[in-house]
Amino acid sequence: MDRRSFLKTSAMGGTAAAATTLASPAVAAGHAQTLTMVTSWPRGFAVLDDAATYFNEAVNAMSGGSLVIEKKAPGELVGAFEVFDAVSSGQADMYHSADYYFLGQHPGYAFFTAVPFGATAQELTNWYYHDGGQELHDELGSIFGLKSFMCGNSGSQSGGWFRKEINSADDLTGLRFRMPGLGGQVLGKLGVSVQNIPGGELYQALSSGALDGLEWVGPFADERAGFQEVAKFYYTAGFHEPGSGLACGMNLDVWEGLSPEHQAIIDNATKATTHYQLSQTLANNGAALARLQAQGVQTLQFSDDVWDSFGAASKEVLDENMGDELFAKIRNSFDASLAKSSDWILKSDGEFVAQRNRVLANG
Amino acid sequence: MDRRSFLKTSAMGGTAAAATTLASPAVAAGHAQTLTMVTSWPRGFAVLDDAATYFNEAVNAMSGGSLVIEKKAPGELVGAFEVFDAVSSGQADMYHSADYYFLGQHPGYAFFTAVPFGATAQELTNWYYHDGGQELHDELGSIFGLKSFMCGNSGSQSGGWFRKEINSADDLTGLRFRMPGLGGQVLGKLGVSVQNIPGGELYQALSSGALDGLEWVGPFADERAGFQEVAKFYYTAGFHEPGSGLACGMNLDVWEGLSPEHQAIIDNATKATTHYQLSQTLANNGAALARLQAQGVQTLQFSDDVWDSFGAASKEVLDENMGDELFAKIRNSFDASLAKSSDWILKSDGEFVAQRNRVLANG
Repeated sequence: MDRRSFLKTSAMGGTAAAATTLASPAVAAGHAQTLTMVTSWPRGFAVLDDAATYFNEAVNAMSGGSLVIEKKAPGELVGAFEVFDAVSSGQADMYHSADYYFLGQHPGYAFFTAVPFGATAQELTNWYYHDGGQELHDELGSIFGLKSFMCGNSGSQSGGWFRKEINSADDLTGLRFRMPGLGGQVLGKLGVSVQNIPGGELYQALSSGALDGLEWVGPFADERAGFQEVAKFYYTAGFHEPGSGLACGMNLDVWEGLSPEHQAIIDNATKATTHYQLSQTLANNGAALARLQAQGVQTLQFSDDVWDSFGAASKEVLDENMGDELFAKIRNSFDASLAKSSDWILKSDGEFVAQRNRVLANG
Repeated sequence: MDRRSFLKTSAMGGTAAAATTLASPAVAAGHAQTLTMVTSWPRGFAVLDDAATYFNEAVNAMSGGSLVIEKKAPGELVGAFEVFDAVSSGQADMYHSADYYFLGQHPGYAFFTAVPFGATAQELTNWYYHDGGQELHDELGSIFGLKSFMCGNSGSQSGGWFRKEINSADDLTGLRFRMPGLGGQVLGKLGVSVQNIPGGELYQALSSGALDGLEWVGPFADERAGFQEVAKFYYTAGFHEPGSGLACGMNLDVWEGLSPEHQAIIDNATKATTHYQLSQTLANNGAALARLQAQGVQTLQFSDDVWDSFGAASKEVLDENMGDELFAKIRNSFDASLAKSSDWILKSDGEFVAQRNRVLANG
């Protein structure tokens, strides 16, 4: 399982040497240090590239230009889903992506983006920093020679775009639908033909009919991608990604070669990024939703029957991975934190929001 | 209304001169710069001093020690509620506090902590960074010679600790209860004798019988303050502070004298602080609540009748301030953002959490 030793032996030729040079005393004496970041997002993609951009600008500004991150979009150095291996091998210094794209590397990565019936953005953050999540992210990363950070969050992702209404679980059978991560495996159990396609290619796939439907992020990002032009039924709530964390993975040798102040800048920039970009996304989602409705999009919710099917299949998918010891360790930590923090949130925020809506509707 | 000019003329003698020196070329050449921060929190106070501590350590680490913040707890330089005037006048460089303590300076400050029936922590953040909140904070600050930041959030504050159950609005009459901000004015309309007492003195006031009840923050902070020893009825949800922002106010001349990288460090440190400390608070609230219940505390919710009374009085209090043009401008901006982002959150997170709870309870 120690892929890191393997990668070090076999792949650390060219650019890995450059990474070592970056941490030399000459750099510590004041020369600017440049890190190459590969991302899974086309430049300018709402929400996702927004997070990478905020992060890079914050690091540059806080370091006074002594630490510069050079972003490479998919295709500029490697493909959208090749960023993990590129950083693990030292071909690039860091990536910005969603870690559930890397279930093939380890299924435990699902928890650092989102799992079906899992955590909202706030609940995920609670676990990550204060109930053991970040330590487990690092434990996974150490297998692959990575130092990992949460760096952005999309908020609760919408159930998705459909060309026809979904009135029962039967309506899902045979549907060609895009959904990555464990959510896609759940849909597979319900008879969906699941496709995993990079974001930059989705509009084309939906408009050509290669896909019957898809979920992407939420109104703000979805509107910019233009899905409303080719599908009219929009389910606003989904089971699959109640608050998807974005991730920044850095080559561990590069990380360890940084000065303490550059490490502190990167660490805090990831936190500032999530705070700023999640709120940007949520502030924009409401306005975008209104515009989508004005373009003839119908917003809907799945029926209880459909949610029940999602629930049963989600439990199956999560249970199937429990043979992996580290997956089980991560899931148990995640579930314990979620049970605890969701209880308080329900008794405080939950009750407040319900009463606010009731009182304001009557007043 | 331009208090800044007045303060500059009358009060900028001693320490203000020191603040100017701090931004001199000698400092830019590499000497450490020290800023004095006065706070409204006793050292080690959960949630509130936690936020100030995280912020100060992040700034120190990210700047490589070139920007050091020296914290002064209440009484070490000025009193808990004197921090605003101390920074405005240049006696201190910055404060960490809750801006609703300064309604006497301007009632618009309420919105930068919390207003009755207002925004949750996430909704407040959405407004602050993406719907005009921060610009309005700066507009207020310019009156007093301040540059303002959001820096921490307590999450939804609990309804409070009572010695007797509150079964109807009549039970509130004559109660001696601590609640600051506009929430306190609301309780005043319902016949409560409202006290505003610094946090460090609350335990003594409750145990001596000077108070019949109080609200402070939430389970994590309340437990550490020890209120469970002297009151047994704990209302977990409250109308008054659904997500209280903490604030960092900096003397505007000091701010403008900082280097661009120190400004970027401070700006991003405030965001990282809110992200980290809010999740710390929420992660700890669940565990603390369970411990409180084990000590015999009864958790309760107010009845619809009581919530209706809170609602009517809250509207009255907010309306009374609408004669002030800047207050009205801030309220309208806040309300417009809240309506928009709360709609999306209800249709996505709200529906997801409801379905998750339903499905998991049945499974």
